[in-house]
Amino acid sequence: MLNLQCASSQRWLDQVDQYLEEILIDHAHCEHKAAATAMSLLGSYIENRPLCEAMTEIIQEELEHFYMVRDLLERRSIGFRLQPPGDYGRQLHKLIRPNDPDRAVDRLLIAGLIEARSCERFKRLSEHVTDPELAEFYASLFESEARHHSTYVRLAKEFAPPATVHARLNELSAGEAMIIQRGCPLPRMHS
Amino acid sequence: MLNLQCASSQRWLDQVDQYLEEILIDHAHCEHKAAATAMSLLGSYIENRPLCEAMTEIIQEELEHFYMVRDLLERRSIGFRLQPPGDYGRQLHKLIRPNDPDRAVDRLLIAGLIEARSCERFKRLSEHVTDPELAEFYASLFESEARHHSTYVRLAKEFAPPATVHARLNELSAGEAMIIQRGCPLPRMHS
Repeated sequence: MLNLQCASSQRWLDQVDQYLEEILIDHAHCEHKAAATAMSLLGSYIENRPLCEAMTEIIQEELEHFYMVRDLLERRSIGFRLQPPGDYGRQLHKLIRPNDPDRAVDRLLIAGLIEARSCERFKRLSEHVTDPELAEFYASLFESEARHHSTYVRLAKEFAPPATVHARLNELSAGEAMIIQRGCPLPRMHS
Repeated sequence: MLNLQCASSQRWLDQVDQYLEEILIDHAHCEHKAAATAMSLLGSYIENRPLCEAMTEIIQEELEHFYMVRDLLERRSIGFRLQPPGDYGRQLHKLIRPNDPDRAVDRLLIAGLIEARSCERFKRLSEHVTDPELAEFYASLFESEARHHSTYVRLAKEFAPPATVHARLNELSAGEAMIIQRGCPLPRMHS
């Protein structure tokens, strides 16, 4: 359902155990970035009203999550701060083809793959951590990420036939699996 | 209250009379751009929670207005489309100083001046047009633009003392008046 080609590794769970605070802070940044991505897609394909409406819904949900994570950080007296980003997003964006409609398909599918990976990691995190508040928090979030994944894949089909979209999703998903398996030394939600 | 240094001219009202459809289409684009600006400011000053919350509220309101204008266009069978932008925004952005905190002050004040000009023009438009639906529509919108203007000026004071902000607002507002008086041959909401 999530179209991912690998599960998150023990290496990432070790980063979670060692650098939980940094990963929680990164999670707040991820929620903002997801909202900003949806805003950017809305602007790029502004003539497509169903796409705009789906993006508006995602913007609202991601910003809600942003504040939920900020509140969680505050309850734990973890100062929210800027952090150098990991390279997951940058590596994925290199896979985007330059010209529309290919570009639209790729931007939407990559946004969808990021949502899928978040979903997989939130679920993994909720099963891994012993802290009941965190376990419940992440269990409550992963359903919406799965829904956003489906929305992005569905919208990509406004720019190419379904079979073409699924073939490209398979290619991009293979790329995503390579990037996530390579990992990133900075402990992040997608490291 | 709006800190504007000139009123909109007859030249613009003549553009409204001649190219109303194009200006209505531009209005939808303006609402999206206002939402995207607020998202961008949220990202740049993400550690400042009151700023984030104010930006979130503006994002939501501007996107609501975006759909209100889209609906208005649909009711009038005016096809929403891409249009080359006028140069108001680009000219204003040239006035932004490069380094924070000056940059933050300027970005917020310029966003605030754009809201102020929208407010002034919506009011002018509501008084000028004879079409009752349009008159009512624009009369219903200008209050929120005035409120956004105040929000941006207030937030600028998180980055510089009030007297400094007001002096800079005065300078930027003089620049805005020059740009709007020079006008733009493309008929736009801020031409």
